[in-house]
Amino acid sequence: MFKLPRGTRDFTPEDMQKRRYVEEVMRSTFETFGYREIQTPTFETLELFTAKSGETIIEELYSFTDKGGRELTLRPELTAPVIRFYVDKLQMEPKPLKLFYFGNCYRYDRPQKGRYREFRQAGCEIIGTDTVEANAELIAMAYKILEKVGVKNLELNIGNLDILSSIFKQFNLSKDQQKYLTPLIDKSMFEDVFDALRDFGIKNEDANALIELLQTSNIKKIENLIKDDATKREIVKLKQIVGLLEESFKIKKYQIKISIVRGLDYYKGIVFEIEAPSLGAEKQLCGGGAYELISLFGGKETPTTGFAIGFDRTILTLETEKYKFPTYKLDAFIIPVNGDMIKKSLEITQNLREKGISVDVDLLRRGMSKSLKYASSVNAKKAVIVGPKELEQDVVTVRDMKTGKQEIVKIKNIAQVVK
Amino acid sequence: MFKLPRGTRDFTPEDMQKRRYVEEVMRSTFETFGYREIQTPTFETLELFTAKSGETIIEELYSFTDKGGRELTLRPELTAPVIRFYVDKLQMEPKPLKLFYFGNCYRYDRPQKGRYREFRQAGCEIIGTDTVEANAELIAMAYKILEKVGVKNLELNIGNLDILSSIFKQFNLSKDQQKYLTPLIDKSMFEDVFDALRDFGIKNEDANALIELLQTSNIKKIENLIKDDATKREIVKLKQIVGLLEESFKIKKYQIKISIVRGLDYYKGIVFEIEAPSLGAEKQLCGGGAYELISLFGGKETPTTGFAIGFDRTILTLETEKYKFPTYKLDAFIIPVNGDMIKKSLEITQNLREKGISVDVDLLRRGMSKSLKYASSVNAKKAVIVGPKELEQDVVTVRDMKTGKQEIVKIKNIAQVVK
Repeated sequence: MFKLPRGTRDFTPEDMQKRRYVEEVMRSTFETFGYREIQTPTFETLELFTAKSGETIIEELYSFTDKGGRELTLRPELTAPVIRFYVDKLQMEPKPLKLFYFGNCYRYDRPQKGRYREFRQAGCEIIGTDTVEANAELIAMAYKILEKVGVKNLELNIGNLDILSSIFKQFNLSKDQQKYLTPLIDKSMFEDVFDALRDFGIKNEDANALIELLQTSNIKKIENLIKDDATKREIVKLKQIVGLLEESFKIKKYQIKISIVRGLDYYKGIVFEIEAPSLGAEKQLCGGGAYELISLFGGKETPTTGFAIGFDRTILTLETEKYKFPTYKLDAFIIPVNGDMIKKSLEITQNLREKGISVDVDLLRRGMSKSLKYASSVNAKKAVIVGPKELEQDVVTVRDMKTGKQEIVKIKNIAQVVK
Repeated sequence: MFKLPRGTRDFTPEDMQKRRYVEEVMRSTFETFGYREIQTPTFETLELFTAKSGETIIEELYSFTDKGGRELTLRPELTAPVIRFYVDKLQMEPKPLKLFYFGNCYRYDRPQKGRYREFRQAGCEIIGTDTVEANAELIAMAYKILEKVGVKNLELNIGNLDILSSIFKQFNLSKDQQKYLTPLIDKSMFEDVFDALRDFGIKNEDANALIELLQTSNIKKIENLIKDDATKREIVKLKQIVGLLEESFKIKKYQIKISIVRGLDYYKGIVFEIEAPSLGAEKQLCGGGAYELISLFGGKETPTTGFAIGFDRTILTLETEKYKFPTYKLDAFIIPVNGDMIKKSLEITQNLREKGISVDVDLLRRGMSKSLKYASSVNAKKAVIVGPKELEQDVVTVRDMKTGKQEIVKIKNIAQVVK
């Protein structure tokens, strides 16, 4: 009768079991890296996002005017709210400030596999340092988080927007030409890039050279081309970062990829992406890099680097890779054999729960066979049968739901048997 | 520069520490009772809530029209979405179905202490049974959850709307008269109730008798007045429920309170509220009861009982009661004494993290005293100092941040010392 809004989802207990598990692993990994959790509201003022991303973003926002006439919007991403929070209340905190968060985000997009109108993101920011060790640690953390939740097949690509800009400059590409090219480069549509370069009047040979640079993962080739000192320093830093990834964080599987654009104007310097090839077209799980947003939001500029992980896509990847999620088990299901046994059954149930054991009890006064069937449907490991004759001797019957084996157990010993 | 929307909040790491702790205790308590977690979207169709609560609710909703012309609204509460979900996808699940959930809700209300425009609720529903043991278990669970999170001062009140209706009927009050009285009764404004009853033409003596009934916690007094058999059966059930609360769940601190109205049309039969007197005016932490909503939403009617706990007020209560929340500690902070020690320091850091230890490392290349100051500001228990001379012998210096005591530790033994 009433419909779920398009592009949104209901999550069953089985879904939530997976989602809580993944979120818990992510959270504890963030915490082992010294990051601390924060949270911002689900909606923000509209101007926060137009300031960051321009007016064109309005098209894909769930924005509305509240009863006080304020223009608000469901947040499409979490970095802008977090930096607003930082500028407002956290600027005086000791640096570096390491923050992580989980939150639902909203985009009025065409729903498809791996793309929802309400979706969940995990993310983090490190504020106040841009040393190579800080960059390496951040990239390593993104990779380790996805590894720890159980994703098998990961591809880590690392680029640098300063190097990309420098290459553009050497080929004398104007800002407008760069703007035209970046989305094509971002989507690896190199034939279209080639055609565009030729249209811009660039020689065949130079166009080929540029495209080769964009596609190479050989840092030496890039190094040979770069002339200006500032960019040379960026290359040295990039080499140091991957050196630390290999030696300190033991991450050997990565590629230099100068064509990473991240599509966002406020990124600069180091950028990276992690993909799950098993997902097909929508394979990006994580994207991040260094950016400048604090001064735009009225704060004192200081280096910031961060990343976002697509939570729903991470789950989808694990499902695609047939990851064995931990399954839910109820420790015990208590069955009173008749109405007179209910009071005592509830008491036994509650005593076990107080010990942290997950216990359910028949609440429908069913017969034994129906109760056992229900116990099995809720994945109970043991059934505890409470009968009058047994009760006289302070014992119950404990049945193993898998083997069907039954044993007589003293009431005070049930906890040891079912845990 | 950019403002937080009115009535919403940012949560600092210290806030989130408390919130995650409380949510975790609540979740694990729900689970020990055999409840399983579900989740529904943040927004729903507007008609879902007007169908349940009438058109007047629109005033306090954050509703909006999406770009496809759909009338949507941020959810003001979680029961309607959960029952929509049940009707849509869960009707065939084995009964009873025990579901719990956490979710943010939204009301366009005047913000004040304990009332926010975005607030968090915990809640649950049991679908498919209304036995006294099911009711007793549900009420006990609400009470135990609040007890387990650490609230000291709780007041549990239990009522029954059928008994209240029956009393109204015996005094020949019309539906309209009842409708006028219920909000007054809900707010315990008994002088106003008395005046209204006199206005309705009820004798002084009868008005006094009615008000006495509403205020009594003596079930015998109520019993003496009730004439019809259906209501007599409700009284027997109420007595059985409190009997089970006392004997099976060991909850002795409760009051019968016939004046509980819950303000909502779809409640019927058993109702209950849990209050934290330390909160003052806005002291209700939990409210629940039996209700009928499934058939209204197009499903096959079956008994449903549930409750909601105000998550923010629970935190506020704990803060008011000066509850000692677990505090965040970083296990270790690693300090490289110079730039050459960075690579090895990161490696030591990462090895400890892989063992599940929370470790941070200096990422700003500061001097020793600044690094120690930072370690102290992030609540590190130990500082691990990595220096060149020590490294030659595969050792580091471990400093206890509280006592200042230092010891030389082999690199391979750091984990044992800092954990």
